[in-house]
Amino acid sequence: MNQNDTSIICLKADVFWFSIKCDPMLLKVKRLRLEAKRPIVILNKDDAAELDVKPLDRLELSAGRNKEIAITNIAEKFIPRGSIGLYSKVQDDLKAKAGQQIKVIPTEPPESLDYIKKRMDGNRLEPDEIRQIISDVVDERLSEIEITTFVLSLHNHHMTMKEIAAMSMSMASTGDNIKWGKKKIFDKHSCGGVPGDKTSMMLVPVVAAAGLTIPKTSSRAITAPAGTADRMECLCPVDLKLDEIKLVVRQTNGCLVWGGAVDLAPADDVFIGVEYPLSIDPLLLPSVMSKKKAVGANYVAIDIPTGRGVKIKTVAEAEELANKFIELGKKLGMKVSCISSFGDQPIGYGIGPALEAREVLASVSNYRHIPKDLLEKVSRLGGELFEFARKKNPDSIAYEMFKSGKAEKKLREIIAAQGGDPNIKPSDVPVGSKNIIIKASKPGKVWWINNAAVTEVARMAGAPKDKGAGILLHKKIGDSVKKGDTLLELFAEKTPKLNRAIRIGKKMDLMAVGKKFSMVMAEIPEERKYEKFFILER
Amino acid sequence: MNQNDTSIICLKADVFWFSIKCDPMLLKVKRLRLEAKRPIVILNKDDAAELDVKPLDRLELSAGRNKEIAITNIAEKFIPRGSIGLYSKVQDDLKAKAGQQIKVIPTEPPESLDYIKKRMDGNRLEPDEIRQIISDVVDERLSEIEITTFVLSLHNHHMTMKEIAAMSMSMASTGDNIKWGKKKIFDKHSCGGVPGDKTSMMLVPVVAAAGLTIPKTSSRAITAPAGTADRMECLCPVDLKLDEIKLVVRQTNGCLVWGGAVDLAPADDVFIGVEYPLSIDPLLLPSVMSKKKAVGANYVAIDIPTGRGVKIKTVAEAEELANKFIELGKKLGMKVSCISSFGDQPIGYGIGPALEAREVLASVSNYRHIPKDLLEKVSRLGGELFEFARKKNPDSIAYEMFKSGKAEKKLREIIAAQGGDPNIKPSDVPVGSKNIIIKASKPGKVWWINNAAVTEVARMAGAPKDKGAGILLHKKIGDSVKKGDTLLELFAEKTPKLNRAIRIGKKMDLMAVGKKFSMVMAEIPEERKYEKFFILER
Repeated sequence: MNQNDTSIICLKADVFWFSIKCDPMLLKVKRLRLEAKRPIVILNKDDAAELDVKPLDRLELSAGRNKEIAITNIAEKFIPRGSIGLYSKVQDDLKAKAGQQIKVIPTEPPESLDYIKKRMDGNRLEPDEIRQIISDVVDERLSEIEITTFVLSLHNHHMTMKEIAAMSMSMASTGDNIKWGKKKIFDKHSCGGVPGDKTSMMLVPVVAAAGLTIPKTSSRAITAPAGTADRMECLCPVDLKLDEIKLVVRQTNGCLVWGGAVDLAPADDVFIGVEYPLSIDPLLLPSVMSKKKAVGANYVAIDIPTGRGVKIKTVAEAEELANKFIELGKKLGMKVSCISSFGDQPIGYGIGPALEAREVLASVSNYRHIPKDLLEKVSRLGGELFEFARKKNPDSIAYEMFKSGKAEKKLREIIAAQGGDPNIKPSDVPVGSKNIIIKASKPGKVWWINNAAVTEVARMAGAPKDKGAGILLHKKIGDSVKKGDTLLELFAEKTPKLNRAIRIGKKMDLMAVGKKFSMVMAEIPEERKYEKFFILER
Repeated sequence: MNQNDTSIICLKADVFWFSIKCDPMLLKVKRLRLEAKRPIVILNKDDAAELDVKPLDRLELSAGRNKEIAITNIAEKFIPRGSIGLYSKVQDDLKAKAGQQIKVIPTEPPESLDYIKKRMDGNRLEPDEIRQIISDVVDERLSEIEITTFVLSLHNHHMTMKEIAAMSMSMASTGDNIKWGKKKIFDKHSCGGVPGDKTSMMLVPVVAAAGLTIPKTSSRAITAPAGTADRMECLCPVDLKLDEIKLVVRQTNGCLVWGGAVDLAPADDVFIGVEYPLSIDPLLLPSVMSKKKAVGANYVAIDIPTGRGVKIKTVAEAEELANKFIELGKKLGMKVSCISSFGDQPIGYGIGPALEAREVLASVSNYRHIPKDLLEKVSRLGGELFEFARKKNPDSIAYEMFKSGKAEKKLREIIAAQGGDPNIKPSDVPVGSKNIIIKASKPGKVWWINNAAVTEVARMAGAPKDKGAGILLHKKIGDSVKKGDTLLELFAEKTPKLNRAIRIGKKMDLMAVGKKFSMVMAEIPEERKYEKFFILER
């Protein structure tokens, strides 16, 4: 330092010189066999004080040549002095044996923690900083408090488009990436929230039958009665590995697989772990688009269900979101097209994995049986993709594919390629044997159906885990009803769950039926608690 | 519902009636012997899916008549199907034996989670809502993600005074509360950040010797080299129980005990667990004042050290904070007076528990030895309290108490009452046997001392855990220095820690010494990383 004749006294003062080395503490490994997504170790409180570390401080562990960074937890009695408890992950990574002595020294928190604190205070992040955070998230180097802070910072101070793009790229690049060696790869996504939405299972065979490549990965349900992966699993395996997916798509032009079996944008699962308990969804755009990017898609149709019963409440909101998807697509080198679809009642009649799989099979095998709303969604979303592919009359191709039987043939090809029985019939898909029927007590019309209530009752009946559980609607909005007509059937695999669903259903308004349309949707007594309804689907 | 002739179809439709009961799942207890502040249980992932619960969802557990609400964690293999892993706390509360079957059913999250989500989105909370949150924090019913969300919501959207008051009251009322049966109870607090600040140990005997009641509870150091409890513990026990504290105060008018041994405003420790890793301190006001409220104080002097090296950087900031303390005091029925004190160098000469305890003993036993800065702080803070007590010449009482020997007598009474040796001499307090001396390489003056560096080096030497570790300054700001003069001594109890402190000290600027005052405090190369310095003291 240029301090003229004033010297700054650090201990490097000319006066002393020591050979400096901080001796690490030696601690004996105690195997905990505990699973956690993060590399956690537990120290005795006295050893922690000796090292001057607090809960969540970082430690560098060395066992021979293996080094790992771990997050400190502290116990009073569970870990004796001189020992260190290792969670399974740390133990595996460190290849340390029980009883073995390992070296432990405190170390700095990862740099990304600085960026998280910066973001927490409302500052925007640079692409490099986002990349570092996502990389540390995927490498499990951040604690739950730190990840919560990051997710909340995005909820509190919405991401700029620059941040969203950097986030999408980083999330895509920190997992598997598929290269197809083709110019145009098509994909489809729904923002979710509508029960019974089996559009993907109908659309993929249509698009593939028309000669386009559509490697569709889907999620399992998080808050819904069924995800596309849950539905498709009633017909064939969906947990295919990367190489298997490639093979299926090479054979059939398409697939309908579970994204969770491959490692596409793995940071998203970590974020969902925070978003779900807080009912927030600040990462919607990067979450969707990083997966499309990772799967190699460059032409994407996005369905934005719109209505009071779904995530997006108005067409204006849907347009705003659509514009963001389109802009983000441009930044990621993808063409995106969006539709806002009527979201205030279930799609088709079946809700729950098996009931929906049956409905899909019945629909593809006889085009006259395709529920109108389902056909229109498939036609319009297909139309967007076929327009990208410069096909003529793009909106009518889906109908042709169903009518000609090509869509059915393609779906059965995909089922076979994924390892299922190509000759499966709707009745081969088992549905729950416990059921009740709800009948109309008055004649009239169906005026509205409550998605949230339908979802909750179907889940309480066991969906999506019990594949045979769910609801089969017999009437939809606008349908005429005679007294005694069946309105819906409720299915479950187990009696206690059927009872649980009925108990919940008694508290919720499933649909309105009557002669006159009633303007009153709900009475709201002063003390009535707001019914939570949170959709977190990917 | 008044729906005219349109009926809302819930499952309570006239058509069906079931006797409804949701059967709970029966799971076998597996003891984990794991400690956690929250009631955590671990389910196998298949059982969790069966119950339709996700990580952090709540479960109601019943073992015979005992019921507990617990937070769900999920394991793939660690817990087999049909079992449930119980953390020690849950097991103790439930009085469940290993292998015993307990009943498990999903249950709603606590109502306070709604309030946390409300606060997360920037809405202010009502006193009732705050009370519920604090009560659930203390009862350990909230997960780490939820508590982090709450603390961050206070960081992002600063609390209103109404919220601060409600928070202080709730934090105070959810722990021990002391009633003294006296009209005036005095107390003192420092906002901290200045190393070597042994003011409380000097002030309490002064105030008590003057006949006022001052039941001082203090914290141990969190980020500092010593807290008052750490210093005092070199002279006598400080972890007294509530009844013992009352006895000491009844005998001597004062005490100097560790607040952590009693249960004063226990929510604060939970919040510190989040604040520390994120380096944020949104709960400063309720944290301080809830403890004062709980201890029964109604006249409080608050020291706000001010300067670039402490929490509060400017006098304007100090004034703003002081006004809040005063206003909050009014709402809590307390008279508060604040001083902003020079905070840019350590108080006195000793830094670290033993060195500071020695300095206090030496100071009280010979008033001529009291460092000037220490004497002035004690005099002025005492002055505020004596003015509350309507004593004449309030600012001069401290000096009189030291000169007359009454303060020393009182300190020794307190030491004895708390179970220490009243005849203890400074040299009876052991300091670390490993030490090095830093000498001046040039003559001149001391221009500045860096609190952050002094703190870090003292902590690396072992303070506060190793009570004999720390720094003894020989020169302070403005002191003249000859070449070869000792500037400071560094003490440690163990050689590796001495070496660690030296290693860290080499990277930090401890003080500036020279002939000419240098305007350059640090050179900041482009790549130099901002040195973090976060004070979280209570």
